[in-house]
Amino acid sequence: MTTDAVDTPQPTATAAVAPRITAGEEARTLAEVSTTGTLSTLAIEPAGHPFGSVAPFAVADDGNLLLCLSSLAEHSRNLAADDRCSVLVTEPAGDDGRMAAGRVTVLGRARRLERGTPDDEAARERWLSVHPDGQYAHFGDFSMWVLDVSHIRWIGGFGRMTWCSVEEWASARPDPVLPIAAGAVDHLNDDHPDALVAMARAFAGHPDATSAAATRIDRLGIDLQVETPRGWVEARVAFAEPVPSAEALRGACVELTQRARASITET
Amino acid sequence: MTTDAVDTPQPTATAAVAPRITAGEEARTLAEVSTTGTLSTLAIEPAGHPFGSVAPFAVADDGNLLLCLSSLAEHSRNLAADDRCSVLVTEPAGDDGRMAAGRVTVLGRARRLERGTPDDEAARERWLSVHPDGQYAHFGDFSMWVLDVSHIRWIGGFGRMTWCSVEEWASARPDPVLPIAAGAVDHLNDDHPDALVAMARAFAGHPDATSAAATRIDRLGIDLQVETPRGWVEARVAFAEPVPSAEALRGACVELTQRARASITET
Repeated sequence: MTTDAVDTPQPTATAAVAPRITAGEEARTLAEVSTTGTLSTLAIEPAGHPFGSVAPFAVADDGNLLLCLSSLAEHSRNLAADDRCSVLVTEPAGDDGRMAAGRVTVLGRARRLERGTPDDEAARERWLSVHPDGQYAHFGDFSMWVLDVSHIRWIGGFGRMTWCSVEEWASARPDPVLPIAAGAVDHLNDDHPDALVAMARAFAGHPDATSAAATRIDRLGIDLQVETPRGWVEARVAFAEPVPSAEALRGACVELTQRARASITET
Repeated sequence: MTTDAVDTPQPTATAAVAPRITAGEEARTLAEVSTTGTLSTLAIEPAGHPFGSVAPFAVADDGNLLLCLSSLAEHSRNLAADDRCSVLVTEPAGDDGRMAAGRVTVLGRARRLERGTPDDEAARERWLSVHPDGQYAHFGDFSMWVLDVSHIRWIGGFGRMTWCSVEEWASARPDPVLPIAAGAVDHLNDDHPDALVAMARAFAGHPDATSAAATRIDRLGIDLQVETPRGWVEARVAFAEPVPSAEALRGACVELTQRARASITET
């Protein structure tokens, strides 16, 4: 960037290191809560040009992607000639919000499952569990394909991006908090700004915080934008334990708030 | 498809042929009302795999696409090594609605414009007119690229798809009616179902129509689903003249309705 660097206020008190979910977990979570992506294949004509198309997918337990494709579609012809492909999945966002939204590109090779084999039937069942309206999956001209994942490129938004290992991707489980995270962020900001300030003062090393807003929540903690007399700063606070379910998020936020307030009172 | 063919009722009266906008015009319109697409490039590693990423774009007057890309991003490195690429643009739709929504894949080769040249400055200005929040376009590590379009694959939804010629794409102008078409369809269906029945009876060759619903509107006419005692049928009715602007759509619908009612009264 050619913009000037900005000095960021540093913590003025001891702050615990708040763990973060791994990029692999963020990427896998994003894929599991999505149902449709952009499939990129290699066109036959114009030869070798990457060709983007719309593809409903499901994620198998092992992290490979399951696709249900019409044999009449360009992407099926392309894959039959060259099995290299990728699926791009983007976080739901407004059109112009897509650059700030999370996204993951899952690359690998695709293979068509032979009709009627156990693998084919299991893949179709899994895919239909994600796409109950996709009964065309039973039609004779639709085939199940498996994308065997070899590379994962994750972008969390501006400046947050990395390649994830296949091992991390394959072993990751979706963050149970994510489906309600956006609503929880809004709720905390609208109804509990004082709780967020207490967290920033007690745990993020900014005892002079004057306001704070949540920007993201996951099963391990909350990302905050904190205002201090020294300027704005990004911070993160951790839950006492990883939140095991969406239902448990509220209790974890209450516990964190109470502990923050008690900690401030003590000092 | 392995589903049984269904007999469709045929017109029982003379029906004028209602012209349709070309696939090239539909595709170009879709691209012009969109601002972000999926860019597919060829990865360096894993070599030659098609790689999907998010890219804000603009359409130049000649139909080529303008991209503003960070030199730090994977897609820029990919394009520097191999210029073959495509941009997929999809009609706004819910996640599961994307298979029924319109979409277009624009293929070609991308070239980076040299900073400070008149072409570069004109491209940046055009791109910024579509992305007023994208002031990062001025940063030193962002470059303007032109995708010289060579192939266009358009899908209008289930069963409506074709390759468009570059000539058709380049000369097409966006349909001025499209930005308000969805709202107009809802308004006609909610408030003027009797007008649609009159159109179906007078102009679509179904004098026994009992109900009708609009499914699409463009500058040349209205697509209808018509119910008759003989079954449901798809039909199309044409405006007297191509509608020149969004503002003129209402008048064109009123004129078509009045003419339909007069025609029915005469017979």
